Amino acid sequence: MGKIRIGILGYGNLGRGVELAVNQNPDFELAAIFTRRNPSAVQPLTNGAKVYNVKEALNHKKEIDVMVLCGGSSTDLISQSPAFASHFNIVDSFDTHAKISEHFKSVNTSALLTNHAAVLSAGWDPGLFSINRLLAESILPEGNSYTFWGKGVSQGHSDALRRIEGVSNAIQYTIPVESAVNEVRKGTHPVYTAREMHTRECYVSLKPDADMDKVYSEIVNMPNYFSDYNTTVHFVSDEELIKNHHAMPHGGFVQRSGKTGINQENNHVFEFSLNLDSNPEFTSNVLICYARAAYRLSSEGIYGAKTVLEIPPAYLSAQSIEDLRAELL
Amino acid sequence: MGKIRIGILGYGNLGRGVELAVNQNPDFELAAIFTRRNPSAVQPLTNGAKVYNVKEALNHKKEIDVMVLCGGSSTDLISQSPAFASHFNIVDSFDTHAKISEHFKSVNTSALLTNHAAVLSAGWDPGLFSINRLLAESILPEGNSYTFWGKGVSQGHSDALRRIEGVSNAIQYTIPVESAVNEVRKGTHPVYTAREMHTRECYVSLKPDADMDKVYSEIVNMPNYFSDYNTTVHFVSDEELIKNHHAMPHGGFVQRSGKTGINQENNHVFEFSLNLDSNPEFTSNVLICYARAAYRLSSEGIYGAKTVLEIPPAYLSAQSIEDLRAELL
Repeated sequence: MGKIRIGILGYGNLGRGVELAVNQNPDFELAAIFTRRNPSAVQPLTNGAKVYNVKEALNHKKEIDVMVLCGGSSTDLISQSPAFASHFNIVDSFDTHAKISEHFKSVNTSALLTNHAAVLSAGWDPGLFSINRLLAESILPEGNSYTFWGKGVSQGHSDALRRIEGVSNAIQYTIPVESAVNEVRKGTHPVYTAREMHTRECYVSLKPDADMDKVYSEIVNMPNYFSDYNTTVHFVSDEELIKNHHAMPHGGFVQRSGKTGINQENNHVFEFSLNLDSNPEFTSNVLICYARAAYRLSSEGIYGAKTVLEIPPAYLSAQSIEDLRAELL
Repeated sequence: MGKIRIGILGYGNLGRGVELAVNQNPDFELAAIFTRRNPSAVQPLTNGAKVYNVKEALNHKKEIDVMVLCGGSSTDLISQSPAFASHFNIVDSFDTHAKISEHFKSVNTSALLTNHAAVLSAGWDPGLFSINRLLAESILPEGNSYTFWGKGVSQGHSDALRRIEGVSNAIQYTIPVESAVNEVRKGTHPVYTAREMHTRECYVSLKPDADMDKVYSEIVNMPNYFSDYNTTVHFVSDEELIKNHHAMPHGGFVQRSGKTGINQENNHVFEFSLNLDSNPEFTSNVLICYARAAYRLSSEGIYGAKTVLEIPPAYLSAQSIEDLRAELL
């Protein structure tokens, strides 16, 4: 059987992660990278990899089995996914929760009209966390669910810090409260406020004439982002920020605690967790598995959009279902 | 939409658990319980529940959407599942790993011939653990997987103790070595012997004239079962065994630690765990979700056998896929 030929659309952290993921999986090969930049300015990690401008993408339809979309949800995917699903099997990591239904509908229409398979919102949240939330809530209907994120960099919160007057650069870590995670494990079904589940840790560098006290006060009182949390602010230099805070760790916990028994006397704790050194590289590894699923769906004549909730786990594996049943079940 | 009508075949711990699970889920109703015993000797938990002898099962085909098979793998399911899949949509929890492929084939043949859906090997291991092993190995191809079981009662090991001359009754707990579980979380990719992953704790009551030292020696030196493990033996009275060791807790951990990056510089830890007060009741709650899946498959005209690896997660939920995408993804 031939290899699954992957196109990468967008060559940032996620695109580079997908390139690395292709190299980890012998059933894939990298067909081409598409960028909005000048292709000659892009230096791929793979020797001999082809780089084209995104405008040339349709000239390479026949060389690509699945296009992996590596842009941001609001800026890129909202328009790219439906557009590319008219010409390619695609996978994206669309993560604007409030707009998933709308995004699904527009991609589904494009993909169905042209007989392509599209897997949407793949990654870990939405993605693996969603699968585990679904399993846990279905299996334990009488219970409580909890999602903790971190320790990891929140892009949205880091951006909010950078918009404050006087701030030069900033990184925000979301940190789950360990005692809260442990309390769920005891089966006590705690009820938490936002403040009790996560703390927020900010590393901020200031412009030369900035008012440190004013910046501090603006941060800790910022509604939605920080005022509901215990927030720590560390003022550091631009150099320290770049040197010590360039990594992109993330992760978190999905937990559900539920009861069974004639008198609800038995408690069960279901837990799924990730601890990731590199959020984009792990997300890329998830994307490539769903690219495999998109390829299989398309090969079977199953077209249209699907989310991770609608795809059998076996479609993610390079092994045959007979081997999986015999060896892994 | 009408409720999904459930038949329960076999009324032991698992059958009673399925009965309780039906009552937790408003989209189900209990149609009937089938037993090999005299039906009048069986006292269901549900008021007005119908109990029949298993020999009458085929007279009730039209009243049952899915038959949940609640027997043991080697004694019952190996023959019951193919036999009942000729007449009903079925779910079983077949867990003899070495015979799953053979079992699958025989049930698949029966079910396909008569247009029924059969979900096999549902539960938590095989089951939820299998799904998570598959996800983890697919997403992190360069890594190591670990499965720890417990703390929980191992029926096979308890039976082995009971077969020793002089033993009146016995219970064996399998206990994961906490430091080994924690070491995996550090991303160090440890290599373990059996002894390093689990300890075994035995509670044993003796017959009046038994030789305690001889029994002790037979236990700790028993090949396969105990000699490769650090084993603790507590000699207790029959009364204490019944009083303090009648609960059926279980659980465990599926972990995978894997690398990504140009120089494999990033480590990721994937972990799934369960901590269950009642192994049969939790397993029953999983079975009822796969009964929902079997019903849907059959309603869509998708017949034959499937394992948990082949079923989209959304099929386990009572919610519509539109709601799941909008609210849970």
